[in-house]
Parts: sequence; C-alpha cells; structure tokens
Amino acid sequence: MPRYKLTIEYDGAPFVGWQRQDNGPSIQGAIEDAVFAFCGERAAVHGAGRTDTGVHALGQVAHLDLGDDKPVDTVRAAVNFHLKPHPIVVIEAEIVPDDFHARFSATQRRYRYLILNRRAPPALDRGRVWHVPVPLDTVAMADAAALLVGRHDFNSFRSAACQAASSLKMLDRLEVTREGELIRLDVAARSFLHNQVRILAGTLQLVGRGQWSRRDVAEALAAHDRTRAGPTAPPQGLCLMEVRYDLDAGHAERADVASDDH
Amino acid sequence: MPRYKLTIEYDGAPFVGWQRQDNGPSIQGAIEDAVFAFCGERAAVHGAGRTDTGVHALGQVAHLDLGDDKPVDTVRAAVNFHLKPHPIVVIEAEIVPDDFHARFSATQRRYRYLILNRRAPPALDRGRVWHVPVPLDTVAMADAAALLVGRHDFNSFRSAACQAASSLKMLDRLEVTREGELIRLDVAARSFLHNQVRILAGTLQLVGRGQWSRRDVAEALAAHDRTRAGPTAPPQGLCLMEVRYDLDAGHAERADVASDDH
Repeated sequence: MPRYKLTIEYDGAPFVGWQRQDNGPSIQGAIEDAVFAFCGERAAVHGAGRTDTGVHALGQVAHLDLGDDKPVDTVRAAVNFHLKPHPIVVIEAEIVPDDFHARFSATQRRYRYLILNRRAPPALDRGRVWHVPVPLDTVAMADAAALLVGRHDFNSFRSAACQAASSLKMLDRLEVTREGELIRLDVAARSFLHNQVRILAGTLQLVGRGQWSRRDVAEALAAHDRTRAGPTAPPQGLCLMEVRYDLDAGHAERADVASDDH
Repeated sequence: MPRYKLTIEYDGAPFVGWQRQDNGPSIQGAIEDAVFAFCGERAAVHGAGRTDTGVHALGQVAHLDLGDDKPVDTVRAAVNFHLKPHPIVVIEAEIVPDDFHARFSATQRRYRYLILNRRAPPALDRGRVWHVPVPLDTVAMADAAALLVGRHDFNSFRSAACQAASSLKMLDRLEVTREGELIRLDVAARSFLHNQVRILAGTLQLVGRGQWSRRDVAEALAAHDRTRAGPTAPPQGLCLMEVRYDLDAGHAERADVASDDH
C-alpha cells in the first residue's frame, strides 16, 4: 500500500478552507473526490497545514495511501484531470516511506503575507492581498518583527479556537520587505498556532501605522493574552509557500507539533 | 473644462477588452458608466492602449474632460465607488493640460508577458499566465530577443486586423528573465502594432522549445509576412504595466503613433 506525497497549489477563495466540513466545499474534500473519481478509492488526504477559508497555497503538502502501486505521473495527471474546474492543482506527486506524515513529519513551514499599501484598492490582485490604504513604515515593522523571532510563548498570537496544548513556539523567521506598493511578510517555523501569522501581520501593521511602538509589541508578547495583541489580518493576504521535510531522517519525532490551522 | 488623466488597473478576464463594443462589457464602457453615475456627464474616456479581451493592466492611462473643476481625489474615489464590483480601479487622477492625449502623447508603453513554465497548470495564477508545460530555454529566448530590439519593419509581428499605416517600429526593450517556474518578457516601445507583444511571445516560445533557432527569428523578421512568425500567445499572460509621457514637452508630435491594440 504505497504512500504518496502531493505538493499542491490552490486559490483559497472559493473554499471553506483545507479541511472537509459540512458547510461548504473544502480543498481536502475536492482532492479526496478527485482521487475517488480517478481510482475508485476513498483515501483520506492528510494536509501539512489546515489553511482557513480564503487562505491560498503555492506549496501545501499532503499524503495519502493508495491500494495499488501507480506511477507518480499518472497520479498527478489523473488527480489534476478530476480536480477541474477547481482552482486546485497537484504540482508534484512522489512515493514516500510509510512513516512519512505530511503534518507530523514537517520540519518547517513557510508562509507569506501580502499587504497592498496604497490608497486605491486592488483590482488585479483582488483576493490575494490585504489592502491597507494608509502609508505603513516598513522599517519600523521590520524592527518590531525582529523581537518576535526565536523561542517564545506566543499565547497572545493565537486564536481563542486554537487547540494546541502549548503555545511555546520557535519562530525561525519573520521578515518585512517592501517592493513598491507591496509589503511582504515572510514567516517560517516548524509549526504555527491557529491564526498566528495573521495575528503577527495584524500586529505589525499597527506598528507600520505608527499606532504601536516596538515596546508595545514586546509587551503584547510578554502578556501571553490574545486581547493584548493586534487584530487578526484578513485571510486573503496569506499563502502557504512551502513545507519542508527531512526525508533522510526518521519521522518519529512528533513532540513539537501543534495545531497548524491558518 | 479640465482634462483629467487617470491611471488604471484592471483584471481583463471578464471584459471584451478596453474598447466599448456591442458584444459585451468593456473596461472603457465601465469607466464611462461610472463617471456618468458620479457626475451625470457622458464623457468619453480615451485610453493609451486598446487592450484585447483577457489582457490585464497595472498601469493603463486614460484621459477625459469634465465640465466642472473637481478635486482629483474626489474624481478618483467617486469613480472607484461606482466601478464596484468590476475588477477595475483608478489608482490615480491628475489634472493635465488640454493638449494632453492618453494615446497620442505617450512616449513609451511597457508591457509584461508571463509564462508559467512547468508541467502542472496554474491554480493561483490562473488567468494571469500562459501555461507552457515543456521546458523552455530562456537563455536561447533572450539571445533571439536581442535580435528584435531596435528599429525594424515588424509586419511579420502584427495581426491581419492591424490598422496601423506603417509597420516600421522602434522596439526599445525585449528582455527575457526567469524566476523559478515563471518566465517574464519585458517589452517597451513608444507604440506597438496589433498583437505585436503576443506574437513576439509566441515566436520566442518556439525558440525556447528548441523548435526555432535565432536564425529562424531573423528570417521571420526579414520576411515581413505574418505567416512566417510564430503563433499569437494567449491574452491572459499579457499586462500593460506602464505608459510614459513627457509632460514637460509639448504634445503636438503625433507622427510615430500607430494602432495600440493588444
């Protein structure tokens, strides 16, 4: 019973999110249905991150087990055929060891949050960016972001619905860069708390507006209280860029993994 | 009767193109309707380039005359309000001299053509890129592109429907760059022939596939015959990035201007 690793791109706008739910179409559900249409198997598709409604992915990773050994190119092409017309595409399919788990084996997740920082709303990038019409100071944002990198209790930066047992997390990267009207937040960690990236974006935006200082961010972090951090930035600016695995190492380590709901 | 210059961004997908037509919604028509809804004036909106159906713009420019002197921020915000829910946004409104003409005063137009060069079709960038699934050699494409820069008779590179009197054009720039799976063609000229950028993209793609050599491109250019160049690349990969003007100089020069239909 071979295990397949899928690398997946999607536009999150028309979905209730990654996870199969009763209240609307999900990405997981669309892929499971496409697998069934292709080979008649009701295989569970496990994703690395449970992206929320409206959140996009350029490099989501999932795994599933199929009864027969099928060529990876056949799996990729057939699932893509049956995924139409959904804006979901399997970029790559690979065979992986039986102990590979898309969620639990991940060693790093990389997200990007995009802010369109200009007066006029987006037209071509509608649904792909958060529109902030007032000028943001990206130097101040980058400076405050540096405070948050490292091992911290991010309890102030997770949604009330977060199911992770611990809010202690190692944030590997949080970079703020500007290219013209577009501000990019590049964030990386082994795993994230629910809405963590969006709350980080919403908080740094307050710094960019000049409403918050670097010190306010430090105090919000130290408070361990969700009500002390900034607002949750809207989902459409967020994109799961990449999930990394150490495929040479074993996959037994499951200690540091928390809820990866975004 | 002040003249306003508008800088406009749009997603070309839902439109028949820039120009008002009987067979469906146009960008020009949507803006003229929004101007009417805002101030009750039936002003003609003249664009710098008549983009074809499906072609996008990040920096289209248009001009119009209004009866009253209205603040530019009011014009921008009110037109944007009435443009909803169309994916068209006025980024900037300015008052310009009476002899300014969006099409005839332009000194340079800059287009970008995007090719997604990977096996899997696009999901998040669907409708924004041309999907070419076979590997393209961008070094060979850039090398052949260099041949086309400069002053040439581009008769092989314009559609049969092109209405320009002359096919002699100065191509200022034609650069091919790759960033991962994305290939960018950056093209600039004072003005273009109908479908010129898309035929350049379709021809360079043949070089990238290894089907055409640099010499084939030179022969196609020398033939002055549309049937000797490559295919017209699809519209969704094309975006009008910027239109430049020399606002300090006069606007009387109209000699070199041709059809700017894309």
